[in-house]
Amino acid sequence: MKLISNITKMQEISEARALEKKRIGFVPTMGYLHQGHLQLVEKSVADNEITVASVFVNPTQFGPEEDYDEYPRDLDRDLDLLQERGVDYVLYPDVEDVYPEGFATYVQVEKGTDVLCGRSRPNHFKGVTTVVSKLFNMVKPHRAYFGQKDGQQLLIIRRMVQDLNMDIEVVACPTVREEDGLALSSRNKYLSPEEREAALIIYNTLQKTRERIEEGERDGWALKKAMEEAIKAEPLANLDYASIVSRDYLQELSRIEGPIMIAIAAFIGSTRLIDNVWLEVE
Amino acid sequence: MKLISNITKMQEISEARALEKKRIGFVPTMGYLHQGHLQLVEKSVADNEITVASVFVNPTQFGPEEDYDEYPRDLDRDLDLLQERGVDYVLYPDVEDVYPEGFATYVQVEKGTDVLCGRSRPNHFKGVTTVVSKLFNMVKPHRAYFGQKDGQQLLIIRRMVQDLNMDIEVVACPTVREEDGLALSSRNKYLSPEEREAALIIYNTLQKTRERIEEGERDGWALKKAMEEAIKAEPLANLDYASIVSRDYLQELSRIEGPIMIAIAAFIGSTRLIDNVWLEVE
Repeated sequence: MKLISNITKMQEISEARALEKKRIGFVPTMGYLHQGHLQLVEKSVADNEITVASVFVNPTQFGPEEDYDEYPRDLDRDLDLLQERGVDYVLYPDVEDVYPEGFATYVQVEKGTDVLCGRSRPNHFKGVTTVVSKLFNMVKPHRAYFGQKDGQQLLIIRRMVQDLNMDIEVVACPTVREEDGLALSSRNKYLSPEEREAALIIYNTLQKTRERIEEGERDGWALKKAMEEAIKAEPLANLDYASIVSRDYLQELSRIEGPIMIAIAAFIGSTRLIDNVWLEVE
Repeated sequence: MKLISNITKMQEISEARALEKKRIGFVPTMGYLHQGHLQLVEKSVADNEITVASVFVNPTQFGPEEDYDEYPRDLDRDLDLLQERGVDYVLYPDVEDVYPEGFATYVQVEKGTDVLCGRSRPNHFKGVTTVVSKLFNMVKPHRAYFGQKDGQQLLIIRRMVQDLNMDIEVVACPTVREEDGLALSSRNKYLSPEEREAALIIYNTLQKTRERIEEGERDGWALKKAMEEAIKAEPLANLDYASIVSRDYLQELSRIEGPIMIAIAAFIGSTRLIDNVWLEVE
């Protein structure tokens, strides 16, 4: 496994491998890897001759009050985990090379980015789509792997890839969970034991909502209200949003129908956690 | 020469040619070709094993009051001209395929796009950078050719390519002119004989300004004022702007220094024409 910091060198390597007719799989990450990331890596290694993972904590997707500086980092451990799973290259660029002085170009999806997480994190998805576009141009993958846990991000990246005619297959992988259901997240490490217990309210509420829909409930506002009340009943939780949206433009649904995403974001103590489940409703 | 309307087919062709280790040159155009375009084509054919030209009048770079519907089109003549010069593929996509229902993603350079042409054409460059990004992903060129006549566009595309790490060499070609100096433009066909005569004021004013700088004048405001007065003295001309800007972020210069662009836009009758000259000032 090779660690690559130089962006041009990464492009040269990818072009050379592509000319050898090797398919390149790409797993972009912000590091501090958990089993959710590693599942993406394993799938890429299984599907492609070459796998590139990137480790880059992207400043432009954090708000001014958010945890960019404190975001957990552990490169040595990440490299061990990636090497064990057969990754070929790790792209680890300097932030000054990714955003040099005078940087001025952004990629923005203008639908579905101002709702859910985009409401409380106004420039978050603009930062995500810009850095993912850049990473795609650095790595030139044939396939790119994203977790369903960041459901809105996944849907927005798919829209970007389609709209801008990027010739890349976006592969979605299911959310990896602890045994009790909590979605894996690098931010789970912030949780105290009491908060870790309380955090379960998110997944439990999603599950309960899924069950009610499967039992025939179709009233979006009633389901939303029940989710809000469930989260509010947990003393350590502070609701950001609970929504049921269509998966095309992430529009909130008053009547539940079609391919949907049930999504919740809540602060548990001072840690913001998100989770979602996807359903096809007839 | 092959005419390709299907975007996926174009991508497959480009990928196949690249795997044969052929370099792909790309000339994006809005059609109604003149010698300015053809010079770009000739350079691409000389420099690369494969040349792709596109003919696509891009609606998103026209304002609501502008000439999208009336923009001159003559595909048969364009195809003859491109074939004569040895172009391999012409990409001619349907507007509904380029911008399908639900299209929502834009690429935007946020510096240098609200001045000069960007001031009177507010979303023009957003439309340009978005469609050029899309065309790049359709054609996957190694090199792309742009005319210096659209000077601001060229500088903005260079910035986009650099900022988004697009692995494409942007090649600039000098403006092609009529014998008397008028820059070639598809819009020159709108001019009456009197307007055609009056249009010369643009190039003559640029030349006069260049001479004054070469003679030692460094006062940006004095030079700007002289340009404005020269254009206003022509009864058929209506000034949009006359500016001397730095070539990095297109900032207007009070003191002339460094790599600069002298740029003028004016309506001649109802036809908006632009032109510019580039200078390196010590």
